[in-house]
Amino acid sequence: MKLLFIGDVVGRPGRNMVQEYLPKLKQKYKPTVTVINGENAAAGKGITEKIYKGFLEQGAQAVTLGNHTWDNKEIFEFIDSASSMIRPANYPENNPGNGYLLLKVNNLEIGIVNLIGRTFMQPNDCPFQKADELIKEIRKRTPYIFVDFHAETTSEKQAMGWFLDGRVTAVAGTHTHVQTADNRILPGGTGYISDAGMTGPMDGILGMKKEDIIHKFLTNLPVRFEVADGREQLNGVLFHIDDKTGSTKKVERIQISPEDPFYE
Amino acid sequence: MKLLFIGDVVGRPGRNMVQEYLPKLKQKYKPTVTVINGENAAAGKGITEKIYKGFLEQGAQAVTLGNHTWDNKEIFEFIDSASSMIRPANYPENNPGNGYLLLKVNNLEIGIVNLIGRTFMQPNDCPFQKADELIKEIRKRTPYIFVDFHAETTSEKQAMGWFLDGRVTAVAGTHTHVQTADNRILPGGTGYISDAGMTGPMDGILGMKKEDIIHKFLTNLPVRFEVADGREQLNGVLFHIDDKTGSTKKVERIQISPEDPFYE
Amino acid sequence: MKLLFIGDVVGRPGRNMVQEYLPKLKQKYKPTVTVINGENAAAGKGITEKIYKGFLEQGAQAVTLGNHTWDNKEIFEFIDSASSMIRPANYPENNPGNGYLLLKVNNLEIGIVNLIGRTFMQPNDCPFQKADELIKEIRKRTPYIFVDFHAETTSEKQAMGWFLDGRVTAVAGTHTHVQTADNRILPGGTGYISDAGMTGPMDGILGMKKEDIIHKFLTNLPVRFEVADGREQLNGVLFHIDDKTGSTKKVERIQISPEDPFYE
Amino acid sequence: MKLLFIGDVVGRPGRNMVQEYLPKLKQKYKPTVTVINGENAAAGKGITEKIYKGFLEQGAQAVTLGNHTWDNKEIFEFIDSASSMIRPANYPENNPGNGYLLLKVNNLEIGIVNLIGRTFMQPNDCPFQKADELIKEIRKRTPYIFVDFHAETTSEKQAMGWFLDGRVTAVAGTHTHVQTADNRILPGGTGYISDAGMTGPMDGILGMKKEDIIHKFLTNLPVRFEVADGREQLNGVLFHIDDKTGSTKKVERIQISPEDPFYE
Ligand SMILES: [Fe+2]
Ligand SMILES: [Fe+2]
Ligand SMILES: [Fe+2]
Ligand SMILES: [Fe+2]
Ligand SMILES: [Fe+2]
Ligand SMILES: [Fe+2]
Ligand SMILES: [Fe+2]
Ligand SMILES: [Fe+2]
Repeated sequence: MKLLFIGDVVGRPGRNMVQEYLPKLKQKYKPTVTVINGENAAAGKGITEKIYKGFLEQGAQAVTLGNHTWDNKEIFEFIDSASSMIRPANYPENNPGNGYLLLKVNNLEIGIVNLIGRTFMQPNDCPFQKADELIKEIRKRTPYIFVDFHAETTSEKQAMGWFLDGRVTAVAGTHTHVQTADNRILPGGTGYISDAGMTGPMDGILGMKKEDIIHKFLTNLPVRFEVADGREQLNGVLFHIDDKTGSTKKVERIQISPEDPFYE
Repeated sequence: MKLLFIGDVVGRPGRNMVQEYLPKLKQKYKPTVTVINGENAAAGKGITEKIYKGFLEQGAQAVTLGNHTWDNKEIFEFIDSASSMIRPANYPENNPGNGYLLLKVNNLEIGIVNLIGRTFMQPNDCPFQKADELIKEIRKRTPYIFVDFHAETTSEKQAMGWFLDGRVTAVAGTHTHVQTADNRILPGGTGYISDAGMTGPMDGILGMKKEDIIHKFLTNLPVRFEVADGREQLNGVLFHIDDKTGSTKKVERIQISPEDPFYE
Repeated sequence: MKLLFIGDVVGRPGRNMVQEYLPKLKQKYKPTVTVINGENAAAGKGITEKIYKGFLEQGAQAVTLGNHTWDNKEIFEFIDSASSMIRPANYPENNPGNGYLLLKVNNLEIGIVNLIGRTFMQPNDCPFQKADELIKEIRKRTPYIFVDFHAETTSEKQAMGWFLDGRVTAVAGTHTHVQTADNRILPGGTGYISDAGMTGPMDGILGMKKEDIIHKFLTNLPVRFEVADGREQLNGVLFHIDDKTGSTKKVERIQISPEDPFYE
Repeated sequence: MKLLFIGDVVGRPGRNMVQEYLPKLKQKYKPTVTVINGENAAAGKGITEKIYKGFLEQGAQAVTLGNHTWDNKEIFEFIDSASSMIRPANYPENNPGNGYLLLKVNNLEIGIVNLIGRTFMQPNDCPFQKADELIKEIRKRTPYIFVDFHAETTSEKQAMGWFLDGRVTAVAGTHTHVQTADNRILPGGTGYISDAGMTGPMDGILGMKKEDIIHKFLTNLPVRFEVADGREQLNGVLFHIDDKTGSTKKVERIQISPEDPFYE
C-alpha cells in the first residue's frame, strides 16, 4: 500500500503541476490514497470549492489545509459539504469543518488527520493533546493513519513525529514550503519528513514574487504579495506502507521541476 | 575549487562526527576551504576556545556562529583572538567579535560572512542592508564569498539567496538543524540551500533529548534540555565553484549517518 | 464588601512593601478579601513556600501567579499543599496546582480565578473558553468572583473584561508591572483595570536593575537580571463591591511610594 | 512652557474629540506646543492629508505616527510635503518621511522625535541607538526635546525613559491605547509616562468594536475590525516644562470622557 502526499499547492502554477503530474504520478506509483495540502491553492491564500473539487477529480481522496484555511471567504459556504477536506483539528471547537476524516479505500479504512503548530503561529488548542485524543479514537478502527502537521519550526515537527512514532503510519510536515531532506522511518515504524515542500512557482519566495518579498525585508513597507510566474515545481512524498501493520517501510521524496524532470 | 560547509555541530556527538569524518571528507573531496557552524558545539549552547581550536586542527579554516554565540560565557575571553571565528555581522556594532573574515588560501582570497535573521528571532540590524554593505566591500577584493545565513524562516532565507544571487558564491542557511532538499544554483550563479542541517545526535529533537522537548510541548513546564545520546549524524554541503567566476557549478548535499554510511 | 488586590510583588523590595503597608491598608480599608499576585516574589522569579506563607500571615487570603509560576523550583514541592495559591487556570490540564479557589469569608463564598493570556506569551489553553467554563461553574455557588488576568496586551485584557462583564465582580490585569489609569466599571457591573501595577523597586525597569535592561536593549548580549535597589512602591486596586449583587460600585487605584505617601 | 500631547487618535470618534476639546484644552492650559499621535486617525488605520491638515488647523504643531504609518496608502502621496508630520525615526533609512522635526515657537526651538519599539513588533533599526544619535544632534540646537516612543512593552518603554533621562524634556509612550498611571519625573528631569492612552471610542477594545475582537479571541477566525460607536474619550498628557533647563517640572495626565467631564 502506498500513500502519496503533495505539499502546499500554491495558486495557478501549483494547480497546473497537479493537473499535469498527478495522473502521471498515480500511473507510475499506483498509490492507494492521495492527499493534497491545498491551503494556498487559490491565488496563494485559501481554497475555493471549484479548486477543491478539481483536486478530487484529478485523483486526490483528501485535501488538508493550514493557517491559510479561512483566507478565501468562499470556504465558509462549502466547508460543511466538503466531506473530503479537513482543516487543523486543534482549531477551536467552535470552528466550522472537521479536523480528520476516515477514508474507505477498497476494504480498508485510512485516517487522515490535519494538525497545526503553535510555535511562532496563532494560539490554538494543543496539537499534541489533540493528536493523542484523535489517534486513540482512530486506532480503534484502523492502524493506517496519516498526519499532515502544518507547523513553522522543526522542533515542533520533530516532536510530533517522535510523539506519534509507533502510533501512526506517517507524519508529514507542511507550511515552510521547502522540502526537507530528513525523510526517514522512526524506530516505531512511523514514516516522517519535516516538510513535504511546496507545489507551485519555482523562482519565487515560497511561491510568491521574489521582488515583493525582498522589498518587504528591505523596507518594512506594505507590499501586496502575488503568486510568482515562470517555472513550476511539484514537491511531495510517497509513503510505502506495510499492509499488515500500517507502519511505513520507505519514505520517498518526490520533486518534479525543469531541473528534476519526471520519468515515467 | 570546492567549499565544504558543515552545519550546526551539536555537543560531543557533533564533535565526534567532525573528528571522525572531517578528515575523510577532506580526503575524498579535497575542498579548498572548510567552514563549520559551531554555535551549538559546547553542550548544545555556544562554543569554547578548546573546541574552536579543535575544529581548526581537524581541518576547518573558519567557524561561524548564530543565536547561541554568547551562550557559553568563555567566548568573551577568547573571541578577540579567535581570528578564524565570526559571529553574525548584523549584531549591534558595539558587540565583540567580527562578522566576516577574508581567508587566504593558496593565492586566493575567500570572504566568509555570517548573518542572522530577524523573523521570529531577536531584533538585530537589518541582515539585508548589512549584507549589501559587506558584499560590496568584499567584492572589491574577491568574487569568492560564502554566506552562512542563520535564520528561522524559509522566506527570509530564500529572500537572502535571491538578494545576493550573482553577487556571492553561495548562501547556506543554518539554524533549523534540518537539512533541506532545495539545494540549487540560482540564475545568477549563486549556490543556495535553505539549511545545511545539523551535525550531532540522530535520534533527538534538533540534537536534544526528545523526551524533554516533548514534555515541554505537552506541559509548558520548565525543562532542562540536554544533548541526546545514541546514533550520530553529520550534515553539510559541498559547493563546487567555478575558479574563474567564483560562481557555483554544483551544490551537493552531504549526509552521513548509520542510515547513510560514508563511502570513500 | 471590599476586595483588595496587590499587583505583582517583586523580590525583597516588594515583600518589604507588603509587610509594611498591608496591615495599614487593611486597617484603613477593611477589605473582606485580600489577594496578592506573587509570581515575582522570590528574587523576581517565582515564589517559595516561606514567602507564600508570609503573605497569608500578613493578611492575604489568596495568592495568584503568572508566567513566572514555575521559575523557582521549590514550587513543585509545596504547590499541592498550598490551598490558597492558584496558578493560571488555562495551563495544560496535566500541570500541578489549581487555577481557581473558593474562599469562605464570614458567610460568603468568593471565587478567585487566575488566567493567563496567549498574545506574545506561551501557547496555553484558550483563556476565554476556560474563563467561560469556570465562571459558569463558580456562579452556581456565588456571584462574587475576582479574576486576575495575567496578560501582555491591552487588547486581550480589555477583551477579557468585556467578555466577563456582568458575570464576575472584577477583572484586574497583571504582568506589565505598570498600573494603568483605565480603572472603571463596565456597563454590566464588572470592575475593571488593565493592570494593577507592580509592588517592588521604584527606580528599576519592571523592578529589575535598569542598567542591565538598557544594556540588553543596546547590545542583545546576555545579561543576568537582578532586582533593583533603592526606593520602593506598592501598586494595587481596591474594589468596592455591592453586597447584594456582587457587582462593583467603585474601582479605586492604590499607589504608595515616597512620591505618593500613604495616608491613614 | 507647556507641551500638550494627545494619544493615538482613532477614527472619527477620536477626531470628534480633538475637534471639540483641543480648542478648550488650549484655552485652559495654553500649551506652547501641541503634538498629536495620528497613526489611527483614518478609520483606525493610518492617516490622510485632510485629517493631518485638520489637526494643524485645530491647533496641533506636530503629528506623530507609529506602526500604522503606512496603512492608509494616501500617505505615500503627501508625506513628503507634510513637514509637521513624523514617522518613527528608526524605520529603515530608505523609507519616505522624516523621523524628527524642529519646531520654532516664539523664539524657541523644540525637537519632536518619533521612535518605535522592536519587542513584539516589526524588526526595525535599534530605537536606542537611533535615539542616542538624534538626541546628540538635536541637543546642539535646543534642550527642549519631546519623544513619542511607540512601543508594545513596558520594559522597552521604561528602558527608553531611563536611557534618555536628563537628555530630553519628556518621553511619552504610545501604542497600547491605554493610559498608564506611572506619570513621573525621572531623577535627571525627564518627564515620563509609559502610555498616553487613546483618543476615540470609550466602549470598544483599543477603539475597535468589542464584539469583533472577542470573536477573534474565541475563534481565531478572520474578522474585519471596525472603529467602535458610542461614547468617546480623549487621553493625553500635559508636560510642565522649566523654561531655563528644558526639564519637566510636572507630568499631568489628561482624561476626558462622559465619566471624566472636562472642566474649564
Ligand atoms: Fe502553505
Ligand atoms: Fe501555511
Ligand atoms: Fe544551531
Ligand atoms: Fe541557531
Ligand atoms: Fe510579574
Ligand atoms: Fe508576568
Ligand atoms: Fe495606535
Ligand atoms: Fe500602534
